[in-house]
This record gives sequence, structure tokens and C-alpha cells, in this order.
Amino acid sequence: MDEFELIDRYFSGRGARRGDVPLGIGDDAAVLAPPAGRELLLTTDTLVAGRHFPADGFPPDAIGHRALAVNLSDIAAMGGTPAWALLAIVLPQADEAWLASFAEGFSALAERFDVALVGGNVARGPLSITVTAAGFAPQGQALTRRGAQAGDALVVTGALGGGAAGLRAFFQGAAVQAAPVRAYAHPEPRVQAGRSLLSRAHAAIDISDGLLGDLGKLLYAAEGLGAELEAQALPLAPGASREDALGPSDDYELLAAVPEREMPAVEASLEGPLFTRIGRVTPTSGIRLDGRPLAGAGFRHFA
Amino acid sequence: MDEFELIDRYFSGRGARRGDVPLGIGDDAAVLAPPAGRELLLTTDTLVAGRHFPADGFPPDAIGHRALAVNLSDIAAMGGTPAWALLAIVLPQADEAWLASFAEGFSALAERFDVALVGGNVARGPLSITVTAAGFAPQGQALTRRGAQAGDALVVTGALGGGAAGLRAFFQGAAVQAAPVRAYAHPEPRVQAGRSLLSRAHAAIDISDGLLGDLGKLLYAAEGLGAELEAQALPLAPGASREDALGPSDDYELLAAVPEREMPAVEASLEGPLFTRIGRVTPTSGIRLDGRPLAGAGFRHFA
Repeated sequence: MDEFELIDRYFSGRGARRGDVPLGIGDDAAVLAPPAGRELLLTTDTLVAGRHFPADGFPPDAIGHRALAVNLSDIAAMGGTPAWALLAIVLPQADEAWLASFAEGFSALAERFDVALVGGNVARGPLSITVTAAGFAPQGQALTRRGAQAGDALVVTGALGGGAAGLRAFFQGAAVQAAPVRAYAHPEPRVQAGRSLLSRAHAAIDISDGLLGDLGKLLYAAEGLGAELEAQALPLAPGASREDALGPSDDYELLAAVPEREMPAVEASLEGPLFTRIGRVTPTSGIRLDGRPLAGAGFRHFA
Repeated sequence: MDEFELIDRYFSGRGARRGDVPLGIGDDAAVLAPPAGRELLLTTDTLVAGRHFPADGFPPDAIGHRALAVNLSDIAAMGGTPAWALLAIVLPQADEAWLASFAEGFSALAERFDVALVGGNVARGPLSITVTAAGFAPQGQALTRRGAQAGDALVVTGALGGGAAGLRAFFQGAAVQAAPVRAYAHPEPRVQAGRSLLSRAHAAIDISDGLLGDLGKLLYAAEGLGAELEAQALPLAPGASREDALGPSDDYELLAAVPEREMPAVEASLEGPLFTRIGRVTPTSGIRLDGRPLAGAGFRHFA
């Protein structure tokens, strides 16, 4: 079975059916109809076996879910609505059971977020998956990392440290269906939360490299500012320590800087306690936890 | 140096500067402004070391060129005008000399085709490069693989077999600057040729898997039709045999099915003999060369 047949069998027509896809997978390129008056968001992210997910024993459907989820999380962090995805798989052999399971995990998430799979590539090599996701945002309103102001509240979605705790549980032998591992294996892109921050937050980012690492990037983009975090306020995922919540953890929650005047609207915008206030932006640089200085440190891919 | 710094140093602001890029590399996603009334083309393609380019001794700038070129070739095959690209690199270590050279080759081609690099990802792992390219085509006019009709002339751009001949020369020790290797290392995306086929060709495809393989796909999409090729008419690249021209060869030329009435316009549309007529579409299935039946066989990635 060649690449052409593999894509045809496992990926053609997967994900959502959308009216803005005149031509999907199967030609040299997809033909798409972006909506008038909105900006297009594009992002790409790679998962490498043994680095971004366990090389052994990790189920292909979870790899499929994660590969799409980390990209939808980037669209969510911009306040966007996802629409289309392209999928490039490098895998050692044409393992049909693997591909069927991978496609299932990918497609289930895509359908849930109304994302059409419009492009695919399969090549032979060491396992890695690169997804490109596209979405839309209202003209001139996409949230960026830049723009946090002193006095802004810092809020996060969901709970933190679940990625680190889940991965640890997996390596300790917990089943993939067990709650902590599931949080790692099936992160939920915070698309609705991101949209609710549009025209309210000053800045937003997704927490893919750990809270301190990504908060550091938000502050780097707001030159000279710092942050004060409250340890008690950090929402910890089941099984997660405070160190898990602060350090490198594949959580894919959102972190946003929200002016106080918008906080009531943000807190009222979603059902349940999805947003948690964890601190505030300060006029002086550096990150402090309960008043003690911390050094920002993210996931240093090449450290 | 972490991923953030690597991207910032080698890839931020590379390629063309375009007015339709409100926000490029450096945030969770790029923010882009597609033109009104045109369709968006999206494609993704991966190059794996040792499979899509030589693992040893192949210059990084040529890898950068090829990684973008194969994607621009897909946009060209749809008759599109390229605009934006995203680049996901997996590499074993943060080799700065490698990255600088790679970025140079990628950027030089991007600038020449007015393509802005709007997204980047660098991860550690076995060397592979995945590029996503975006372009535009007039509403409803993008060329597809489907639509060839019996009697259409089959035309190709440039010369065939140069990829296979160049790779052979490389492994025989020829310098990368030598003409045959250069054809392999620096394929030229046929963007202008693709645009000149808009509203003229019935169908088009880029020859990435060899003439017979890709002609086979064109005919597969035009169920039941076949083709008659003339051996004497095949434009051979320097150093290429007829077998190189027919079989798997990374040529990235375009193959199109053009109705006879449009042939004068197609032949007049470009300076120089860029298009060569190599045969015609026949009402009966199968591919014949000078009247003898051939089996179609492309680059079977997983055969």
C-alpha cells in the first residue's frame, strides 16, 4: 500500500464536513474558502516520539488526539475558532492498526471542534507527527502574547500540572484510561475559553511549556513587566504538585492577562469555575511567588 | 539556546515581507489577511533525511530550498500564487551552522516567490522537515487532478529525469554545484507555468513521484481514460535517461492535460520552450509509450 492509498483509506474525509472546503484531501493542495472580513490564524506544531509522547506503550489514538489538540490550543490562545487541519505523519512502517487508531483519535477531536482534515502526507521514517491548524478571528481582534499591563489579573483555565502528573503516572504503570494519565493523553483545547477572552484580555498564551515558562514569554512580550503569583490560588490537577503546576508540564491550558474592569465579564462568560485568578501583572520585572522571586524556566527543547 | 531563541534568531522575519501578515512568527499562531474573493490553497509535505534527501553530505541550504520548493510546487500545480509558509523542523541537535545554512536556502527561495515565513517550530529528534504552504487562486478556478478528457494534449514543463540523474551523480561523488546535482538540489517551482494553465488546462499535477506515477494519478482521477506517450517527445534533463524521465524522479515539473483549442495560448503564454507536448489522453485505459502498454508505477513510499 503506497502513501496515496494510505491517505485515501485512513484520512480522506475525516474530521468535520464543512461548507468552506471546496476541495479537501487528495489533490496537490486543498482549496478553501475563508470567510470574508475575518483574519486567518495558522499554526504548526510537531510531536516527536520519545520526546513529546512516550515512545512505547502510548496508544495511537491518544497520539492522534494530542497532535491535533496542541495545535487547536494555539488557535484557542489567539481567541480563534478552528476550522481546518493538515496532517503530516512520519512513521517507520505502514502499520494499518496503528494508522486506524491514530486516525480515530485525531478525527474524534476534529469532529468535536468542527475541524475538517484538508491535507495529509505520510512518509517513512522515525515516528513524528506535524499538524498545521487554521482558524479565524474577528478582524484586528486576535489575542496575542503582547499587551499585558501592570495591574492586570492573571487567569488560567482548568487545572495545572496535570500533564506532568499524568506522564509520571504513565511511567509508573498506570493505565491510559486512569484519570491522571487521561489528562496528559487527552488535553482539551480551550477554544470556548479563548473566544470568551476576545476583546476582554490584554494578552493570552497557551501553557505548553509550563506556567513559569509561558508566563515568562508573556512578560518578555510586555517589556519590563513582572508578575506576582499566589501559591494558594494555583488550581492543581489531580495528582499534581505545586512544582508540577509551575514547571514544565504539557497542560495546554490558557494563561491570560485581563484588566480588572473586564474580570466580572470573563468570570461570568463560562459555566463553572473554568477561569482561576492566580496573580497579577506587576510594574517591576521578575516573577514572584508569595513575594519570593522565582526564575522563569520553560521547556528548553535544546537545553 | 531553547526553541524560542532558535526560531527568533534564524527564522523570525525571514522570507518576503508582505502586507497581508498582521502578525508573523513568534506568537501562538500567525494572523493573516486573505484577499477577498479568492480561494485559499493549503498543502503540507515532509522531507525525511535519508529518504527524501541524502542523509550525509547534502548541504543544509539545499535541504531548506527543497523543503519549500516541493510545497510551492504543489501550489503551482493548482495554478496558485504562493503567499505564506510555515516550517516545522525536527533535528538531532541545535546545530547553529546547520540552521543558518538551512534558513538561508529556505529564505532565498521564499523571497524570490514573495512568500513570507509566518510560523515555525523546532523540536529535537531525527532530522525531518515539514513545510506547510499557502497560496491563492481565483474563485472556482484552481486546477485539480480531475477533469482530463480524451483528446487532451499532455504537456510537461521543463525537463524530466533531472532529479534521478542528479541524485545518482551526487552518490557518484559529483559536487553539489555541478549541473546535474543542482537540478536535484534546487528544483524550481513552476509557479508562473501553473498560473498560465488557469482556465486553460483541464487538469494538472506536479511530478513528484515520476511521470508514470503522476500521470497514473491524473488518469485515475479521470476514470477509465488512458494515455499515449511519444518517447521521442520526452524532454530529457542533462544526464537523464528515458527511464529516469518515466520512473520515480523528484523533478517537480508540472504535467497538464490541455484541450487542443487551448494549446496555442498555452504555448504562447511563456517565454522559451517551457511546455513540451509529450502525448495525449486516450479514451481507453492504460498508458502506452509509442504504442506499447506500460504499467504506471510511482514512488511507492511504503511498498
